[in-house]
Amino acid sequence: MKFNIAVLAGDGIGPEVMEQAQKVSEAVAQKFGHEITWKPALTGAAAIDAVGEPYPDSTHEVCLASDAVLFGAIGLPRFDNDPSAPVRPEQGLLKMRKKLGLFANLRPTFTFPSLLDKSPLKRERIEGTDLVFFRELTGGIYFGEKGRREGGETAFDNCVYTRAEVQRLAKKGFELAMTRSKRLCCVDKANVLETSRLWRETVQAMEKDYPEVEVSYELVDAVAMRLVQWPNSYDVLITENLFGDILTDEASVISGSMGLMPSASMGSDIALFEPIHGSYPQATGLNIANPMAMVLSAAMMFEIAFSLPEEGKAIRDAVNKALAEGIVTEDLAEGGKAYGTKEVGDWLAANI
Amino acid sequence: MKFNIAVLAGDGIGPEVMEQAQKVSEAVAQKFGHEITWKPALTGAAAIDAVGEPYPDSTHEVCLASDAVLFGAIGLPRFDNDPSAPVRPEQGLLKMRKKLGLFANLRPTFTFPSLLDKSPLKRERIEGTDLVFFRELTGGIYFGEKGRREGGETAFDNCVYTRAEVQRLAKKGFELAMTRSKRLCCVDKANVLETSRLWRETVQAMEKDYPEVEVSYELVDAVAMRLVQWPNSYDVLITENLFGDILTDEASVISGSMGLMPSASMGSDIALFEPIHGSYPQATGLNIANPMAMVLSAAMMFEIAFSLPEEGKAIRDAVNKALAEGIVTEDLAEGGKAYGTKEVGDWLAANI
Ligand SMILES: CC(C)[C@H](C(=O)O)[C@@H](O)C(=O)O
Ligand SMILES: CC(C)[C@H](C(=O)O)[C@@H](O)C(=O)O
Repeated sequence: MKFNIAVLAGDGIGPEVMEQAQKVSEAVAQKFGHEITWKPALTGAAAIDAVGEPYPDSTHEVCLASDAVLFGAIGLPRFDNDPSAPVRPEQGLLKMRKKLGLFANLRPTFTFPSLLDKSPLKRERIEGTDLVFFRELTGGIYFGEKGRREGGETAFDNCVYTRAEVQRLAKKGFELAMTRSKRLCCVDKANVLETSRLWRETVQAMEKDYPEVEVSYELVDAVAMRLVQWPNSYDVLITENLFGDILTDEASVISGSMGLMPSASMGSDIALFEPIHGSYPQATGLNIANPMAMVLSAAMMFEIAFSLPEEGKAIRDAVNKALAEGIVTEDLAEGGKAYGTKEVGDWLAANI
Repeated sequence: MKFNIAVLAGDGIGPEVMEQAQKVSEAVAQKFGHEITWKPALTGAAAIDAVGEPYPDSTHEVCLASDAVLFGAIGLPRFDNDPSAPVRPEQGLLKMRKKLGLFANLRPTFTFPSLLDKSPLKRERIEGTDLVFFRELTGGIYFGEKGRREGGETAFDNCVYTRAEVQRLAKKGFELAMTRSKRLCCVDKANVLETSRLWRETVQAMEKDYPEVEVSYELVDAVAMRLVQWPNSYDVLITENLFGDILTDEASVISGSMGLMPSASMGSDIALFEPIHGSYPQATGLNIANPMAMVLSAAMMFEIAFSLPEEGKAIRDAVNKALAEGIVTEDLAEGGKAYGTKEVGDWLAANI
């Protein structure tokens, strides 16, 4: 098959880890007889510097014309001190999600047996953890009307959801649950929020279409607790945008493998794949960043965007083998030999 | 001194643990020469059953006429399945917070050396954890306009904050930080929300009034991570209502001592003290519930509402001694002898 893949490498370590994901994807393409055309485009601080805008129209055109988007990371420290500045890398991220219609953010949290000891949680708490969040990504308080009144003395943010928005996200959750242990947890704050009550009643009404799926409804504060207590008690979780932002980050650290976690953002037409780690600016250009989360994001691209599970598995197998053989960057080296970003990428490509 | 204390025991184990807190408070009053008049009043499911309303006006009158409020717990399983039912125990809680003007919810999370192993986190992650949240409790998305449009197909919740609301909460945080390690973390989502930008700019403007306090600004998603990674890196945190709901619950489990955690809710006139554990209905009447969080809430009452730190310390010392000598309920017994709720209360009262 032939694919056009948009490459939005972004800032910080983004370009370095992206290079490895491309290298590994090329090895997969060669092995399985595919042909990839890479379409690089600007995003984040790099785009602000080049054209004054973190998600320029030209980049949007490239994404629309591609079969999938690989995304590195965005953000640089010089933007950190003023979160209200009008032009910021994150604004590009939100604009991109909205314009590409990426309403479903899929974030798995799983454990690698060899990395269990890196978790802040005790081993018995996380063993076997393999949960997946579907976070709604283009609605809620992120995109509702927001502003000031009374000469700036009062601020407001409106959280809005329509039933259709909840349904399309919940559908993804139910379908995923059907391929896994058939357990779905709907996370909300239905004892306080009207939007949460809409979420809950909408999901309740969908239960009859998936009679095999066992659905539970939990309040966001209770989930914030149980995620730390017994993360391995969860399977598929669905939630709205802001709760998902908080809980997926919380979940990512409990596995102890945050530097290995990929994610996918899916819309009706196009999907985007990115590591959950950020731009890690201090490591830029040092050839020390762990490329595995980016490489595993490419695996998700093959699996989800191209429906090629074998190709995805080839990448996952290579990563597992690298972990088992200690072909890792310094974050995972534990006193053993630390390989460079490029060297890990080369090894993975050679082991496809 | 003479005190009137409103007693809102509530549901489930509320009345049982309340009885112990009253007993211990009486012992304190006797030792230090105070006189307490207890003013019991209905709340929660108990109030719904009696008068059809979870926070009746008669209870509000009792609170207003008192020097402090002791609150047990509310909620019963029969209310759990329909979070949108019009009369629910939580509605009473929200109404009470608003009508009493309890805008600042103080929630400490600390460790007891003898209980470190009960935490889901590894010992080295939590040793020395001693952090305090000030959660805003009468504003934000909890109390903004909420409802439906388009025949129920669209739901909305409005999050609103005024500068004055932020200032009065932040003032509490700055003042508390001055009495501790002088570090204050303002938790927000200023890269997305306008209300968070108001929080951040308001706190930034207050920094000059507290030149000794070192203030950091962290995004709520980052805090959700760091709380699990290094809870002992925090001191005082301030945050808005919904973020506080999620993060204080997350924080409460990391110490492993959730059953021991008290809290205070403060307004301009009156303050309320309650354990953070819920009504634990399965344990009702079994004389097994741990009364220590309720008893420590009474300690906070002496310290905060009555400015009597010695009296508070007498209670804390008794609790520490009970923990050291194993005078504990089954949740902390670890295979040793488990004492009953009443017996622990008696022991604490006798050891004041
Ligand atoms: C950068 C920020 C706007 C973004 C979000 O809140 O969605 C990030 O935290 C994420 O989770 O992708
Ligand atoms: C019961 C519920 C309305 C309440 C809240 O969300 O404030 C509770 O979770 C709490 O934290 O006191």
